[in-house]
Amino acid sequence: MQGTKTTLCNLIQYNSGQYLIDNDLDIGQASEKLRPDCVNWINLETIKADEINELARYFNIHPLIVGDITDADLLPKFEVFEDMLFFSTKMLHYNSSEEEIIEEHLSILMSHNLLITVQEGLPGDVFDQLRGRLGAGKGLVRKYETDFLFYNILNSVLDNYLLIVEKLRLKSEQLEVKMLANNSENVVSTIVKIKRDIQTLRTYTLPMREALVKMKVDGSSFIKPSSINYFQDLQDNLQYLITSFETSREMLKDLLDIHRSNQNMEMNKIMKTLTIISAIFIPLTFIAGVYGMNFRYMPELDANWGYFFVMVLMVLVATIMTIYMRLKRWF
Amino acid sequence: MQGTKTTLCNLIQYNSGQYLIDNDLDIGQASEKLRPDCVNWINLETIKADEINELARYFNIHPLIVGDITDADLLPKFEVFEDMLFFSTKMLHYNSSEEEIIEEHLSILMSHNLLITVQEGLPGDVFDQLRGRLGAGKGLVRKYETDFLFYNILNSVLDNYLLIVEKLRLKSEQLEVKMLANNSENVVSTIVKIKRDIQTLRTYTLPMREALVKMKVDGSSFIKPSSINYFQDLQDNLQYLITSFETSREMLKDLLDIHRSNQNMEMNKIMKTLTIISAIFIPLTFIAGVYGMNFRYMPELDANWGYFFVMVLMVLVATIMTIYMRLKRWF
Amino acid sequence: MQGTKTTLCNLIQYNSGQYLIDNDLDIGQASEKLRPDCVNWINLETIKADEINELARYFNIHPLIVGDITDADLLPKFEVFEDMLFFSTKMLHYNSSEEEIIEEHLSILMSHNLLITVQEGLPGDVFDQLRGRLGAGKGLVRKYETDFLFYNILNSVLDNYLLIVEKLRLKSEQLEVKMLANNSENVVSTIVKIKRDIQTLRTYTLPMREALVKMKVDGSSFIKPSSINYFQDLQDNLQYLITSFETSREMLKDLLDIHRSNQNMEMNKIMKTLTIISAIFIPLTFIAGVYGMNFRYMPELDANWGYFFVMVLMVLVATIMTIYMRLKRWF
Amino acid sequence: MQGTKTTLCNLIQYNSGQYLIDNDLDIGQASEKLRPDCVNWINLETIKADEINELARYFNIHPLIVGDITDADLLPKFEVFEDMLFFSTKMLHYNSSEEEIIEEHLSILMSHNLLITVQEGLPGDVFDQLRGRLGAGKGLVRKYETDFLFYNILNSVLDNYLLIVEKLRLKSEQLEVKMLANNSENVVSTIVKIKRDIQTLRTYTLPMREALVKMKVDGSSFIKPSSINYFQDLQDNLQYLITSFETSREMLKDLLDIHRSNQNMEMNKIMKTLTIISAIFIPLTFIAGVYGMNFRYMPELDANWGYFFVMVLMVLVATIMTIYMRLKRWF
Amino acid sequence: MQGTKTTLCNLIQYNSGQYLIDNDLDIGQASEKLRPDCVNWINLETIKADEINELARYFNIHPLIVGDITDADLLPKFEVFEDMLFFSTKMLHYNSSEEEIIEEHLSILMSHNLLITVQEGLPGDVFDQLRGRLGAGKGLVRKYETDFLFYNILNSVLDNYLLIVEKLRLKSEQLEVKMLANNSENVVSTIVKIKRDIQTLRTYTLPMREALVKMKVDGSSFIKPSSINYFQDLQDNLQYLITSFETSREMLKDLLDIHRSNQNMEMNKIMKTLTIISAIFIPLTFIAGVYGMNFRYMPELDANWGYFFVMVLMVLVATIMTIYMRLKRWF
Repeated sequence: MQGTKTTLCNLIQYNSGQYLIDNDLDIGQASEKLRPDCVNWINLETIKADEINELARYFNIHPLIVGDITDADLLPKFEVFEDMLFFSTKMLHYNSSEEEIIEEHLSILMSHNLLITVQEGLPGDVFDQLRGRLGAGKGLVRKYETDFLFYNILNSVLDNYLLIVEKLRLKSEQLEVKMLANNSENVVSTIVKIKRDIQTLRTYTLPMREALVKMKVDGSSFIKPSSINYFQDLQDNLQYLITSFETSREMLKDLLDIHRSNQNMEMNKIMKTLTIISAIFIPLTFIAGVYGMNFRYMPELDANWGYFFVMVLMVLVATIMTIYMRLKRWF
Repeated sequence: MQGTKTTLCNLIQYNSGQYLIDNDLDIGQASEKLRPDCVNWINLETIKADEINELARYFNIHPLIVGDITDADLLPKFEVFEDMLFFSTKMLHYNSSEEEIIEEHLSILMSHNLLITVQEGLPGDVFDQLRGRLGAGKGLVRKYETDFLFYNILNSVLDNYLLIVEKLRLKSEQLEVKMLANNSENVVSTIVKIKRDIQTLRTYTLPMREALVKMKVDGSSFIKPSSINYFQDLQDNLQYLITSFETSREMLKDLLDIHRSNQNMEMNKIMKTLTIISAIFIPLTFIAGVYGMNFRYMPELDANWGYFFVMVLMVLVATIMTIYMRLKRWF
Repeated sequence: MQGTKTTLCNLIQYNSGQYLIDNDLDIGQASEKLRPDCVNWINLETIKADEINELARYFNIHPLIVGDITDADLLPKFEVFEDMLFFSTKMLHYNSSEEEIIEEHLSILMSHNLLITVQEGLPGDVFDQLRGRLGAGKGLVRKYETDFLFYNILNSVLDNYLLIVEKLRLKSEQLEVKMLANNSENVVSTIVKIKRDIQTLRTYTLPMREALVKMKVDGSSFIKPSSINYFQDLQDNLQYLITSFETSREMLKDLLDIHRSNQNMEMNKIMKTLTIISAIFIPLTFIAGVYGMNFRYMPELDANWGYFFVMVLMVLVATIMTIYMRLKRWF
Repeated sequence: MQGTKTTLCNLIQYNSGQYLIDNDLDIGQASEKLRPDCVNWINLETIKADEINELARYFNIHPLIVGDITDADLLPKFEVFEDMLFFSTKMLHYNSSEEEIIEEHLSILMSHNLLITVQEGLPGDVFDQLRGRLGAGKGLVRKYETDFLFYNILNSVLDNYLLIVEKLRLKSEQLEVKMLANNSENVVSTIVKIKRDIQTLRTYTLPMREALVKMKVDGSSFIKPSSINYFQDLQDNLQYLITSFETSREMLKDLLDIHRSNQNMEMNKIMKTLTIISAIFIPLTFIAGVYGMNFRYMPELDANWGYFFVMVLMVLVATIMTIYMRLKRWF
Repeated sequence: MQGTKTTLCNLIQYNSGQYLIDNDLDIGQASEKLRPDCVNWINLETIKADEINELARYFNIHPLIVGDITDADLLPKFEVFEDMLFFSTKMLHYNSSEEEIIEEHLSILMSHNLLITVQEGLPGDVFDQLRGRLGAGKGLVRKYETDFLFYNILNSVLDNYLLIVEKLRLKSEQLEVKMLANNSENVVSTIVKIKRDIQTLRTYTLPMREALVKMKVDGSSFIKPSSINYFQDLQDNLQYLITSFETSREMLKDLLDIHRSNQNMEMNKIMKTLTIISAIFIPLTFIAGVYGMNFRYMPELDANWGYFFVMVLMVLVATIMTIYMRLKRWF
């Protein structure tokens, strides 16, 4: 059924002078339209096996790569196949309403003047801004070759990582301010949630760093010496991300600290109240104990005013102690 | 009404030999006075839409830039438009009397030998010192070209960021010393306030870092190779700022620690006092309990001196315990 | 018995054009098959003394090296002998089912176009992936010379170190999330176990870093200037590992913190319950004390309803206190 | 009165071949003695306004500089005036007997082959060692020109900063060891004092860092390219200083931690003692309570040995509890 | 007596072709044997004043250096005298049986092709390995000149520093594991001891870092440009050492934390037991109090079974409470 439906893709061709965009081409058409004097960027929004196989047929892609493109659980990796460089990673979006990270599998194939991106095709595209800049001819992006486009794509991906880290950080800080103001009940689950989100980011960032290092070593024939600085820049961003994870871990630890400290305060308040109760009644009980003694000669016991006097004494003691504690602001 | 009033601006023109300053020119006059043998710096102190539109007409500014100049909520960003480079950021002042950070939107436009700055026009100008150095011909500032002026402007902006960070740090340290001396009541709100100020700084610093990195990549045609070191210097300052935020976060955490520890001490003092009261009365209550027993044969009970003796005994026990605790410096 | 059995090894020969693999050669055959136009890689899976001696005879290996190859307790080290470079290290695998690190002694000998690896021969080989890449001619690995093969081998070893660190980190984080959810009993032993694993990694990482530095200084004649960057890359990875150990130490410390905090919470809950019991009974005991006083004139004592009234009063006091504490959510 | 008294200064002249020193010259004489083939170093030990004005007359110093030289409260700064470079900083000495930091204002003026230093003239000179090396012709100091002398002067200043940081660190560590041994009373004031000293160092270090960065940018015409490394070295030292401040802050925080932990221990010991007292008396009071019950049928009450027996029982209970706690090492 | 006895020293001479070693030469003989085509290394194992004076006579050493060589309390320093470079440092050994650091004063003198080392002559020599490598001609050591020998000597010294740091770290970690297993009594003294050892290392490391920086500046004429990387390597090692000190400080702080936490646990256990005792007896005392009331109408009091019933009630209450607490695992 899907075999008959031709897979549609999007082709962008540009050099310093011109910029062409074709939407909804089928792959065969796209493969015929490639121009040697341009950077050709084909974007495919599906990872279904048969559609990727069709792509592989037209562009002579190694079967191992096909497997990696369709495997949405693959960790970021880098591989060189003869005349083609393969980079697989994850695009991450933060869904603010659901407060969860959405993952989208992205594969990048690069040969001489051809770059193919294959994404899962979830709504929301990180490449819109890049396409806009290419179209407007803004920046240097159109003067450089395929490797620079590759850099820009990875950079767009990483920018989103940074955005998510900042969003999680902001969330943590807002939580912190709220917790400092008053004792909120169920922060542990929120903290654990942020911890898991950070862990998700980490899971993809570390292999991406590995892949980039490997690319510098093994993929050097695909990267012009003049572009090496840009890839250094990517590595710096990844390093910054990894450092951010540590910082976030620290922040969440501080949140837990505040939470525990809040709980402790609460607990202490209870203990204080109970101890105050005890401290007031213990002297009173002592007084009662004194007049409960069975000495034959205890003049107060025989006096008519004795009981009344002791009751007044007790009230007095209790009142003075309460006033004293109040003045000292103990409760 | 404002359409008829011509927007006034300030034009500075200099090269290594001369320095000209014209205040309160209208934009048309300024655009005619531009000299090709000088660096021309136009400063405008308004972000009202119609005045910026006038500016755009005379200097052929892209409509997208006009939108960014007038949007005071814009985060720092960098963009290249054909022959013009656009950098938007925030100037921050610290109002010491109100203890709050004042934000002022700043846009910088740079083409070959023309630099236009547009600020919101709040009182207090971070550029006075720079103008003074240009006028006095001090430093190297007049020997270099437009990109160096651009660097000096951004540097003035960043210097103020550093000043604020230092001020907040000083404030934290003074608070810490005060808290170590005695237990102050309401420090949490002050700490939260400083936290928010740091957060404000962070909000603008991170995109500024991003913008600068992008500028190194995309704006390289506007920056002479000999100036690249100065922009590196800006990045170092930004990095230093970001590190400072972490340090500040640590410091504020320490303040919270001291606060909690102070509260704990207070609480402990109360608990100790209450426990001492209990500890003194419990043996006395025991003695009273003993002579409250109903044994038929308890010789003391029948003695006339019994009651007196027990009262003296109780006073003795209480006194000895009190003296012992006092000697041990328990209270 | 073993003297008659010839030691078997595996020989890989490749250059940019060809790739030959011979399994189960005896050492004598391998030594005759060496080709000057190829990189020759001999892999031996035994560290038994007599087999290594046989290897030494054929390839003229210094007796000191033989000692080091057979000593499985040797810490990573580097040594240069005339025309041969010797690098000894440990391969580490993480056995997920047993949750323990398995160590395997690895010695690398390198002369002009010959590289000999000697490993203990435990199941599981870190070099499979490398052989695959050599065979497929993927990456740059076949274009470079012996020093690049050496780099790739050490890199495979280090990749496993990184894998283990990540696995331990993941384990710690899962433990943390579990501990935040509920109070688990025996986490200290798990923490101590992870601590020991990290310590094992550290034990081999630090001397390896030392060995690499020494290699850069003393082994420079074996490393082509064009390969120096790859060795720098190894050092970066080692540095990253060492940093990870510190991070892990921090994480485990946090785990201990959570554990102690959990224990504290538990303890506090007990103390609170006990204190609540005391606080409820102390006023009741006081009331009982009052009516245990021996005053002659205490009207309630003589009333028939006295006892009943006091019992009701006590129940009332206890109930009100309990309700109050309940409303305040003290228990 | 002071107008007639000529200001005395000290003139050192050297090149790689010779070294001349004149003490107690008046400024006029010094200005005549300047030799173009030497580095001329004039040192003035006063910051009184009229003496600096005299200096300004002879050496054509800008009035703004005169103001800065005489203003002892000036923070470190850097300024370039036409043919003269101005650097202002603070020399810091640590007075070990008074345990306080002594500040001394220092201004450095540098033109082609003339360097003028103006200091407040407190006893104790950081330049003695430098003069010694110049005189002995040791090191490279005499081969280099004015900028190298400038570097050496700033380096001597910074060396003293490092010395003070180390002294404060040592002081902290000695305090820590003392605090770990036994609970000392009044450490908070000592900690606050060290905190303030660190703050003083920080106050001067940060602007000095700023001034040096500015000098690299604006003063580049005064610094030979071959000397640039030395100034990098100064920046490294300043960076190390700034890092040390953070470390010191950490250390002092640890000290506070130990102090609080000591106080806590003390507090806990008291609470334990009091709780032990309560725990011993509560069972005894219970026993007394039992025999205070008014049951008609309580055989022990009527026995002659009853009272004696109960007293013995109480002593037994108390003794057994005390021995048990003792054996468990609870006190 | 010692004047007549000639001082004995050890002379090693080598170049890339040959290696000569003479033990127990007297200094005069050694000075005559120096060969211009070799690196000449004289090693003296004494710092007695008259023997050093004899050395100074033969090799024309500045009197100031003689003073520094014989002063075993001298901190590491660097000085250049005309044609001779002087570097003073401390060799540190860790005596594992006594668990203490042994210091040995080491002075290094270097001129063109002569290097003199003077050590205190304690047993145990850090140079044995270096001599072995020189003799065996292993590594590059014999191809390089005097400055490379100098580097190797300092490197041997630093390697021992690193060894000690690792040993102290291991000791700390073993202590930590032990402390986590059970509460050990007297760890504070061990921690303080390690703290002091780290402090000793720090005392020598910081001036050594200073001396090396100074050497790069002032001693550059003695170091060939090709050797500069090796000295950079020394600085990296020193920097690593300094970082290790901070890490060690952190670790020891963690140890103290665990110790305090252990003590706290112990304390909490005691408090819990005492509180449980109180909580059990307080309700019982209340019951006794109830039947100690003097109401005329209390039917239980007159019943024969009253006393027995109350005693059973009390035993029941105590048993139920104990079982409940036991089930809840409170003790």
